Amino acid sequence: MVREVIQPAEAETLAEGFKALGDPTRLRLISLVAAHEDAEACVCELTEPVGLSQPTVSHHLKILVEAGILSREQRGKWAYYRLVPDTLNTLAALITSPAS
Amino acid sequence: MVREVIQPAEAETLAEGFKALGDPTRLRLISLVAAHEDAEACVCELTEPVGLSQPTVSHHLKILVEAGILSREQRGKWAYYRLVPDTLNTLAALITSPAS
Repeated sequence: MVREVIQPAEAETLAEGFKALGDPTRLRLISLVAAHEDAEACVCELTEPVGLSQPTVSHHLKILVEAGILSREQRGKWAYYRLVPDTLNTLAALITSPAS
Repeated sequence: MVREVIQPAEAETLAEGFKALGDPTRLRLISLVAAHEDAEACVCELTEPVGLSQPTVSHHLKILVEAGILSREQRGKWAYYRLVPDTLNTLAALITSPAS
């Protein structure tokens, strides 16, 4: 875990990722996207499970896209969201113990 | 990654952990603690590398202790901090791709 001292510039970027994950609704949203058919979902499929309005869910999804945690693809009327494994694995590697 | 849908109560706890990591100074502090001799450090050894006052560093360390990311042990005048691998591994597992 944390194999070397994180430099200030790198810390800024990494902290943005963790900050995006630091919200219970956003954590639930990424788990819902990952668990959804074909590992992608549109806002229309996420509002009911989290019990929030579409604008609120869209706001959370936007934060996750800006942090590079979700990708967004517009298809017709809806945008579809998927996880970005590289971003999540980079964050995970930072806090994973070498012994684990 | 995110093998099943995260339930609301669990999401609250997990989000607290990620929120504590969502700050560049706190990320640098955990990397400094991990890289320090014997993988522990006191405030007195952390202020200079991060270039912040002792009260500010103590504030950040307190947030990390409250999130279960650092443990704190008072020894004489100083408190010594260590990483808590279990907490960090739980957070990492949540966002690690099974394929990685």
